[in-house]
Amino acid sequence: MPVEAGERVAARIDEARLWQRHMEMARFGGTPAGGVNRQALSEADGEARRQIVGWAQGRGYEVASDAIGNLFIRRPGRDANAAPVIGGSHLDSQPTGGKFDGAYGVLAAFEVLEALDEAGIETRRPVEVVSWLNEEGSRFQPGTMGASIHAGSVFLDDILHVTDADGIVLSDALKAYLATTPDLPERPFGFPIAAYVEPHIEQGPVLEEAGESVAVVEGVQGLRWFGVEITGEAAHAGTTPRALRRDALKTANAMLTRLYQAAQDQADLLRFTVGRFEVLPGAPNTVPARVYFTIDLRHPEAAEIARMTHEIEAATRDLTAPCEAAASRLADSPPTVFDAEVVATLERWRDRLGLAGRRMMSGAGHDAMHIARVAPAAMIFVPCEKGISHHESENAKPEDLAAGARLLAATLTDLALRD
Amino acid sequence: MPVEAGERVAARIDEARLWQRHMEMARFGGTPAGGVNRQALSEADGEARRQIVGWAQGRGYEVASDAIGNLFIRRPGRDANAAPVIGGSHLDSQPTGGKFDGAYGVLAAFEVLEALDEAGIETRRPVEVVSWLNEEGSRFQPGTMGASIHAGSVFLDDILHVTDADGIVLSDALKAYLATTPDLPERPFGFPIAAYVEPHIEQGPVLEEAGESVAVVEGVQGLRWFGVEITGEAAHAGTTPRALRRDALKTANAMLTRLYQAAQDQADLLRFTVGRFEVLPGAPNTVPARVYFTIDLRHPEAAEIARMTHEIEAATRDLTAPCEAAASRLADSPPTVFDAEVVATLERWRDRLGLAGRRMMSGAGHDAMHIARVAPAAMIFVPCEKGISHHESENAKPEDLAAGARLLAATLTDLALRD
Repeated sequence: MPVEAGERVAARIDEARLWQRHMEMARFGGTPAGGVNRQALSEADGEARRQIVGWAQGRGYEVASDAIGNLFIRRPGRDANAAPVIGGSHLDSQPTGGKFDGAYGVLAAFEVLEALDEAGIETRRPVEVVSWLNEEGSRFQPGTMGASIHAGSVFLDDILHVTDADGIVLSDALKAYLATTPDLPERPFGFPIAAYVEPHIEQGPVLEEAGESVAVVEGVQGLRWFGVEITGEAAHAGTTPRALRRDALKTANAMLTRLYQAAQDQADLLRFTVGRFEVLPGAPNTVPARVYFTIDLRHPEAAEIARMTHEIEAATRDLTAPCEAAASRLADSPPTVFDAEVVATLERWRDRLGLAGRRMMSGAGHDAMHIARVAPAAMIFVPCEKGISHHESENAKPEDLAAGARLLAATLTDLALRD
Repeated sequence: MPVEAGERVAARIDEARLWQRHMEMARFGGTPAGGVNRQALSEADGEARRQIVGWAQGRGYEVASDAIGNLFIRRPGRDANAAPVIGGSHLDSQPTGGKFDGAYGVLAAFEVLEALDEAGIETRRPVEVVSWLNEEGSRFQPGTMGASIHAGSVFLDDILHVTDADGIVLSDALKAYLATTPDLPERPFGFPIAAYVEPHIEQGPVLEEAGESVAVVEGVQGLRWFGVEITGEAAHAGTTPRALRRDALKTANAMLTRLYQAAQDQADLLRFTVGRFEVLPGAPNTVPARVYFTIDLRHPEAAEIARMTHEIEAATRDLTAPCEAAASRLADSPPTVFDAEVVATLERWRDRLGLAGRRMMSGAGHDAMHIARVAPAAMIFVPCEKGISHHESENAKPEDLAAGARLLAATLTDLALRD
């Protein structure tokens, strides 16, 4: 029965309808360049919420919210007391974001509810769509706000006073946002979830490069950020001999040479990026007095992050003469390993549905990272054009979005039929 | 007679008077932080001109100007038709400059005229002080304006239309400036000069480091500037494997590693500086798409500049994959070799006067670089504190300024006694 039901629901995924919903959703906060500016709790974010609630109520689904504005759309199962199986992601975007980051997960899960209806499948567990509040964190920090609060790793009272760049307090913005969809029943934070699957665009080039349409995501890389400050001394470029210079850029160059070398792992799993790099005073005829750079370090295994941390600390200690250097940790997030059974279920359905794809780790953080602490969770990636996201040119193919939705449909159906 | 006369004039150099004149001159354009903002043709520059003319006329010297405002103060010799021996430098400063850069050369030469008077020496040739207009070029470009026009390498008509940042035209500013000292006889550009000696602060740390009080400057390093542009591709730091990255900063790092290595000359004469270095887009979690950096390259010998140029071109060609790179020349000035006889005369007097010092090359450009094309020329350097110049904290010791003035006094006297 599960096999047959999963296939039947997957077959009802409507590629054109799913694409159309993306285009309609993209009107909320749509930019002239074809992107989306739909920052969390903005007017556009409220309009997007009203739209998805309208679609849900139009199909007769039950809609609920919690106190931070996480939105839940329920297709009931036979057992009203069973914990739901949930798919979804987020509807907010970066200030110059695209049509697919976040929205895809919510719209794919909504497509699954409709496909379940159209296939005439009754599940044991409720199947739900979630839209977590404020994943991006571009207006109000921290990001992955709604999912973190659901998972109990952030407390609502601790963030209600946070302000945006214009001084608007989160509690006020939240009140106005919740008022766009009044009279919704309120869910408690942390209610039990039987399983959670989050579809998302890859935000990287691997699937497109390989010509594959889905990936089963088995975890999220650990991430550590460093800020490195090198202090030398400004000097006249024409008159100061090399022996008397304290050139902060030359020191930074020596450190980076060692670190780029240390980051050359055979498996190409380590992500080592120096993205911000500032040199002062920055005059062509002045020896640099100061360099500041950031290191963004990611790997699926904590041990590799520890090894590179050791390399960074060694370079900061050993390679800095005649300058001085100091490294500080700006962020630290250990690797997440997704639920083995949910991952295995996704892989079985990927193969049964004949979808080309691989297992991979997520390089970016997602709501699923937090939900994985309190429920069996995993993710699905679909390719996006040139790996670009967080940009107005972000793009994806209708057939890839549909492939990911079919995998989600079969998997959620399978999981929702289980005891 | 020359030996005796040179020693007698040097003995009359008055350290306290010379220092006092620096302090008085520093009032014109003086800044609260103790520096000087006396940009060329400014009101303060006009006041400085009026001051030196006042001192000169007070001592009965002949004062003349040319059409670009170069100022000449003459102590006549026996032979009115003989070409003069000249000492001097400039009175303009950087916007946040100090009390000594330029002013020292003019005031030291003026001190020599007074010392000649007080020693009762009659020379064969006239001895003159020059203040060249607009050496710094911070308000009106090009710098070394007056000396370049005297030497015929820049033509007055070609620069009269130049404007400053406020849109003021050079010809108007020049007219107002020349009106501060009306009725001066006008000299032609390019009149013959028997010898030119320019005293200046070193603007580098070598003399202070060595505990020496004067250097005989035998030339000016050649200088070549490059701009290097590296183009890669922005990518997500968490999701883009190393194999698919085109990291512009990593490419820049490889190029600079090779170039810093190539610049490690045994003699420590090569000056290789990357002073401006910009990385875009500059977000910690984005692989850099673009790097722009400048190279400031200086050496006494054209062959070494050619060798490093070859290295830069090779690095731009060979080390850039998977990015693209292009290097362009922004400036080019060949080395200047000062007159062997003037340099030898300075060295003889340095030794006879018992002054500690060395021969060296100038790392920075000076008015003397241009005068050397049309007359026998050389320079004297004196130490400045920590090698700092072009800064309000620029400083020098009264005894070092006096030592340089004694060397100038003896040398100009010697040269002015010759046929």
